[in-house]
Order: sequence, then C-alpha cells, then structure tokens
Amino acid sequence: MAQTFTKRSEDYSKWYNELVYRADLAEHSDVRGCMVIKPYGYAIWEKMKEILDAKFKETGHSNAYFPLFIPKSYLSKEASHVEGFAKECAIVTHYRLKNAEDGSGVIVDPAAKLEEELIVRPTSETIIWNSYKNWIQSYRDLPILINQWANVVRWEMRTRLFLRTAEFLWQEGHTAHATKEEAIKEAEQMLDVYADFAENFMAMPVIKGRKTESERFAGADDTLCIESMMQDGKALQAGTSHFLGQNFAKAFEVKFADREGKLEYVWATSWGVSTRLMGALIMTHSDDEGLVLPPALAPIQVVAVPIYRSEEELTAISEKITQLSAKLKARGISFKYDDDDNRRPGWKFAEYESKGVPVRVAMGPRDLENGKAEIARRDTKTKVVVDLEGLDEYIERLLNDIQQNLLEKAKSFRMENTHKVDSYEEFKKKIENGGFYYAHWDGTKETEAKIKEETQATIRCIPLEDGDVQGSCMVTGKPSARRVIFAKAY
Amino acid sequence: MAQTFTKRSEDYSKWYNELVYRADLAEHSDVRGCMVIKPYGYAIWEKMKEILDAKFKETGHSNAYFPLFIPKSYLSKEASHVEGFAKECAIVTHYRLKNAEDGSGVIVDPAAKLEEELIVRPTSETIIWNSYKNWIQSYRDLPILINQWANVVRWEMRTRLFLRTAEFLWQEGHTAHATKEEAIKEAEQMLDVYADFAENFMAMPVIKGRKTESERFAGADDTLCIESMMQDGKALQAGTSHFLGQNFAKAFEVKFADREGKLEYVWATSWGVSTRLMGALIMTHSDDEGLVLPPALAPIQVVAVPIYRSEEELTAISEKITQLSAKLKARGISFKYDDDDNRRPGWKFAEYESKGVPVRVAMGPRDLENGKAEIARRDTKTKVVVDLEGLDEYIERLLNDIQQNLLEKAKSFRMENTHKVDSYEEFKKKIENGGFYYAHWDGTKETEAKIKEETQATIRCIPLEDGDVQGSCMVTGKPSARRVIFAKAY
Repeated sequence: MAQTFTKRSEDYSKWYNELVYRADLAEHSDVRGCMVIKPYGYAIWEKMKEILDAKFKETGHSNAYFPLFIPKSYLSKEASHVEGFAKECAIVTHYRLKNAEDGSGVIVDPAAKLEEELIVRPTSETIIWNSYKNWIQSYRDLPILINQWANVVRWEMRTRLFLRTAEFLWQEGHTAHATKEEAIKEAEQMLDVYADFAENFMAMPVIKGRKTESERFAGADDTLCIESMMQDGKALQAGTSHFLGQNFAKAFEVKFADREGKLEYVWATSWGVSTRLMGALIMTHSDDEGLVLPPALAPIQVVAVPIYRSEEELTAISEKITQLSAKLKARGISFKYDDDDNRRPGWKFAEYESKGVPVRVAMGPRDLENGKAEIARRDTKTKVVVDLEGLDEYIERLLNDIQQNLLEKAKSFRMENTHKVDSYEEFKKKIENGGFYYAHWDGTKETEAKIKEETQATIRCIPLEDGDVQGSCMVTGKPSARRVIFAKAY
Repeated sequence: MAQTFTKRSEDYSKWYNELVYRADLAEHSDVRGCMVIKPYGYAIWEKMKEILDAKFKETGHSNAYFPLFIPKSYLSKEASHVEGFAKECAIVTHYRLKNAEDGSGVIVDPAAKLEEELIVRPTSETIIWNSYKNWIQSYRDLPILINQWANVVRWEMRTRLFLRTAEFLWQEGHTAHATKEEAIKEAEQMLDVYADFAENFMAMPVIKGRKTESERFAGADDTLCIESMMQDGKALQAGTSHFLGQNFAKAFEVKFADREGKLEYVWATSWGVSTRLMGALIMTHSDDEGLVLPPALAPIQVVAVPIYRSEEELTAISEKITQLSAKLKARGISFKYDDDDNRRPGWKFAEYESKGVPVRVAMGPRDLENGKAEIARRDTKTKVVVDLEGLDEYIERLLNDIQQNLLEKAKSFRMENTHKVDSYEEFKKKIENGGFYYAHWDGTKETEAKIKEETQATIRCIPLEDGDVQGSCMVTGKPSARRVIFAKAY
C-alpha cells in the first residue's frame, strides 16, 4: 500500500486509468489504440457475454459468424452509412510480405496488391445484408434473428481503455422482418433486454430513449438507446438498438414475396453492446480504493483470507474454510481461498479491495476459537463478525443485498444529479458541474448544434418513459412537445 | 427430395461441399476465402467451444484478449517464425477512406498511410510475448496460463469451407513457464485435452504424435499433434500443441529472476484448434444422406415429427409430445418439436436427416392409439416402435449408444485402412488408395522430401504410443528406430 492512487475528486480521468491497471483489467498494447484485455477483465466480460447470450437465445436469436473484411464498395451502397463509417477505418491493401533484399526483415510485396481494398469491419450491416440477399426469397424465410459476437475496428484518434479503442469486442444483432411493425417491436424488445441487463446485472440504472436525428446510427430510421450516468455526472451510451427501415434492403436489393406473392423490401434492425460496458461498469460503482463489482458480474464473489502465525493455526483455519467453500459452491457462489504464504493478510485485503471482490471473509485464531469469521463487504466497507454456523446463507443474502445496494446507490446518485432546467443561461452554468438536464428543445438541428458548440453537451435521448409536456425551447423559446435529456457524454 | 446429391463414392470432395450447404452449416462469402458460418454450423462450433473452454479452465487456464493487429517488425523477431508466417497475410497499410472527387464512392486516402504496416494476426505468439515481456519479472509471475478465442487470417490461395479458409476462428493457448520440464508437461497435457475432446465428444479417434522437423510449427522446438482419418482415407491434423523452448522469450527478451535471483529466459508453449474441427467432424461420420452428428455435439439431439390428418389428431399427438419434451429436458436432452403445418412429414424427415439430428421420434394416430412412437436413429438409419412409457429413458440410453457406435465405427474404419508397409514400391501403389501407412524412415529431411514429392504423402506424425522397433528405411534402407505414419492429408 506504499503506492498512492489518484482520487476521483482529484482527477476523475486519471483515477479511471489507474484503476483499470490496478485492478488488472486491461492495458494499452504497442499497437496504436488497441488494448490487451487481461484475464481478470476478460473474466468479467465473459460473465456479461454469458448472461446476454442467454437472453438473446431466450428471445429467439441464434449466433452466426460473418467475415472480418468488407469490400470497400459495400460501404458505399447505403448513402448515410458510408458517411458514418467509411472514414477512420483499417484498410487492407496487400496480401503478401516478402523478405527485404537487404536482409533487414520483411516488406510488403508490391506485386500482391488487392484489386479491391478490404475494410476491417467497423460494423457488419453491409456484409450481412449482402448475405441475407441470398437467404431471403419468401415470407417463409422471415424473420431472420441472428447475433454475432465479434471484434470490430474503428480508427479512433483519441482512445481510452474500454471506453474508446480502435479494436473492441462486441455483439451485433442483425434481424430481417416481413413488416415494419415487427421490426420496430424487435428493436424495442432488444432495448428492453439491454436495459434489463444493465439494471439487474450491472446494477446500473439506465434511461431508455430515442436519439435525435443528428445522433442516429448512420443508416438507421430510428435509434433507441440506453443512457447511464457516470460518477462524474457525464452520460455514457451503454447500448443501442436501431430500426433500420428498408435502407439496407434497398441498398442490397433484398426483397421477399409476401403471402400474396407480391415482392416487398425487407425490414431490418441491428443492435449492439460492446466492451465499452466494462468502462460503464467501472465508472458507475468504483471508489478511491479500486474496483467495486456487483456480485452478479464478479468473477470471484467471495474471497477468504486466513490470519495465522503457526502452521497449526493455518491448518485449523483451512479446515473451516474448506467446509465453508463447499457450502458456498453448493449455492452457486464463486469462492477463492487465498492461503498464499508469500503475501501478508494486509496485502491481500488491499488486493481484493482493488479488484472489487464483493465479500471478504477473514479468519484468525480468535475467530476460530469463537466459531466466527469477520465478514467485510466491499461496497460499504463495513465489517461484522458472524457465526460460522449458517455463514453460507448469510453470505448469499449479503450478496443479494450488495447487488441491490449498488443499484439503489447509483439511482440515488443519478437522482441527485438530474435537474429540470428552463433557462439557457442557467443551463450553461449548471452543465459545467455535470449531470442530466431535462430541458425543452425546439426540435431543430440548428438549436441542437448551437447548444453542443457552446456547452459541449448533447441531447442524450428523448426519453421513452416520460409523457409529453408542452413547453418552450430553452434557447429559442419556440414550442416544444416534451423535455429531452442534455448531458456531456463519454 | 427431388434434388439429388453427390455420393461419397462418386466425388468425395463434391460430396463434402454439397453437404456443408445442404446441412446449412456454412457458405462462401463474396470476400475471397472468407466463409459465413451459418446459425446451425455455428451452434455446433459453440458446443465445441463450450466443452473445450471448460477443459481449459479445469486445467488452470484463463481467457484473455490480445490485439488483432501485429506490427510488421514483430514478425521478423523470431527467425523461423517469420519464414512460416510472414508470407501470405492480410496487410493493413492505411487508416482512412475519403469520398472520391468524382462522386463515385470512397477511395483510400493516400495521406493516411501507416508508418509501420499492421498484419492481421495469422497467430499471436509475437504480440502476446511482447506483452508477456512486461508481465514477467520473477518466478512468482510464472506460470502464465492464458488462452484466447479469436479470429485469425492466413491468405490461403485454395480454400475449402471449414478446412482451409482465409479467416478462421480458433483458440490459441499461450503459456509461460520457469522450467523446460514444466513447459513440456504443459504441451503434453494440452495434447491430451485435445485427444480426449476428439474421442469422447467428436467420437473421432485420433493418434497422438510428434511432427518431424520439417512439419513443425514455425518457431517451435517440438510440435505435438493429433491426427485423424477421414472417410476417404486422408489424414487431417485436428490439433497441435507446441513446445516453443525459449525461442520467443529470446526474440522478445523475456527473462525472469529465479529463486536464487538469477536471470533466465522463460519457457513457452502454444496450442490450438480451429473451426477446421468442423470439417473433421463432418468427414468422420457423415454419409450420403447428409450430416451425422455425435449426440455430444448435436444442437438438436432429438426431433419429434407429428403425422396427422386432422386438427384433433395433431392436438392429441402434441399433448403426448409435450409430455415427452418435459421429461427429455429434465434429463438435459435438447429437443425440438416440429409441428410446422406448411411442411409434410417426408420433407421433415429428409431435412433432419441432412442436418444429422441423432434421434427422430415420429408419432401418428395408430402410434397414439397403441401408446407408442417410432424411433429412428440417424447413425444406423434403423427404426423401432417403442412404448411411450419410459421413452425418455430409452432415448437417453440410445443417445449414449449412438455416441459409442460412432466412435467404434470410426475406429474400425481406421483399423481397416491402416497398414504396415516395408517396401517403397508397395507403398507407392497402396498410398493411392488412401489410408495410414506405418513405415520405417531414416530420419532425414531428404528422404521425407523425396517421398512427399513422389507420392504427395507426408509423415503425419511419429506416434507417441507405439514402442520403438528397429527396422530399415523403406526408401534408403538405412537404419530406423521406429515406424512413422505416412498419409496424404488435408
């Protein structure tokens, strides 16, 4: 503990970066903008994947896999898509290296130039709809409900671990439907899946909403999103679900014969979440001592540390811990016993605190004598001494408590930092403190752009759940049908 | 059933390609050499992943994720590695597209040229050892036991679905150890994991062996492999496990302080299997009617088809099937009830036969009356009528039988097509029929190359499990310590 770490209040961004390293979640690689996801970080991502994958399958989706590369010309087929995605991307131009004549290493073989360059997928709508074209003839072939777990590359100039990296991991759902209504329902359903995952597993409250036209996905008719508030009051878009209309069907000429034999363009959705969720998870719950994990996503839910002076003491403690371990495992609780003799208990306490293990069990000779153990919870950092008898049940309840407490705490934080505002002057002052601002907006791109330019705040979403309340735009005074949410965002 | 398909005996290669399409496993994409893995094919791959991943974790490994891109110079750091891998690969040279001035679409922005080209990973030793360099200081940091599930790209000129594609999916284990002995033990352990998976889940018998120097992985001191025999008598390398010595540690300067504080280079292994296993699975069991799947890897283990004329009959049958379904699910058996009214039973029978569903349950009005159902097994294509009472238990036993039968059948086939041969003349004749040939070889690259050139057969492996028996090389007559296995291979 000689090393000191930056506090959130000192420098939030530095605190975040240090935490990612300290908890051993990820690191920068030597390849510009690409990260290495380390085993502990990847174990959390695996839990996220497993839970989401089960939800996708429950809602009727299957996984498949499409090529990493997209022919350059495909990107141009959907007009607005190319604007959004054919910019900063990794471009494969050659397919062979050869030895340099001077023996200095390998060089690109100029003879091995591709006729058409390939783009490393920034998202897969184009390559997938090019396949769907051959899969869909009749209404009987619909719906197609496919998801893909994959890596994608967007050549970002400024990168931050998990939040914005050139390569990232994600899932992308791509569905095809016979009717507009069905596609819209699908996009809404998947937004609900994401919201449920965020709240009940990540313990991260989210607002479901609709993006404005300028913030929409390139190629979508409508983009739904979930927005969450980080501890610095900034917003983070945690997931999006797009109703793509017939845009990609038209770009790739995908028609189906309906029940009457009439040819129609197919309706589409796409939806995705990425390793960015790791950043959201970290920034929602963690504190100055390190990571705080909701039990539902913790690779290790409970760690036990023995405190002993002699081999005999260790043996006696280990025996009790082994019994506890078996009982916890029977309850499906993941457990680690750290009896490494090379490390002192204090070091271990700090280590598992850094890594956000929700519950710590410590047992020393006196605890052993009294048939008790010391239980520390990571979220509140409170400690209690509890009877060994019934400890497994106690811990199971405690894990549920922690999961609930984290969600409640995050909800309270969001409530404290959410405001209604009606004056643009007030807005401009307050937005500097972070937080969500419900304000009236006249619905024009111009006003939206002006606010963004003057304050760096954007319309995070037009919330789905709040009713329409008439008002006047805080900037122009023009009529507004409802409040939208402004915030600075990641 | 109007469509006719190529038989194995007519054209094995064509049969294979047709089968992959017919069973809806995968298809070629418009991107040269890249395939689309369709939902049914991907579901089988997911089962493989899940089982292998559990085995990796049981043996102490964790998953992590490293960058897709490798700086060109890294490939040159290990001398033999660069020879093997820095040839046909996808090379990223630019990071931005821009709109063509003539409005014709997008073009590569010449201003956005990378200083150093990036290679899409053909395998990850170099990028991973470049990370390990920073992770390893002392013996306390060892071993590192990491696996990665990822896509890789090798620019193959001739591609075949699953067997050889430019992009494929795989896992690559990369471990670091303090001693040579420990690393060798790791490589052997992972070979055993692969062999166990192949035999007990894929029902595919394999021979564990060692590659000759010329067939070794580029950068390895020793390559262990599992070799299996396809139904056309050709060999398929199903998995490899490499003892890399200190080659990558030396190339990337990775040293650790041992217990005495002395600096030593780290010892390494790497091991992998890929979507190629899908090809092996198909070619080991399938027949002229389509795919045959071992129950342990079948996404659908049992399908039920109702045979009815009236709505009343369907209702009565469906009721019985629903009861059966619940019982099968309680036994962990995956089940599908296909009561689609748009398709006739005959069409469904053929469909599930094509897709290799191990057990089919058919029930018509007479069966219903008698309290029975017709059970067809995919492997032997035999049918029996069985009491509904106890049918779930019967099916569970049957699935085990099928799993065993497929392994036994494949073992018998391999035995029938495995021969000892001592004369090169005889070898040259017989090898044309396919099969494995145990022959003596003088241990030289020259003889190995001569045989390969004259017969297209290669030494698949020096088997681990057969004892040393002295003999003379079938080509040169020089002394040989043991027989090795020759075959033509995929």
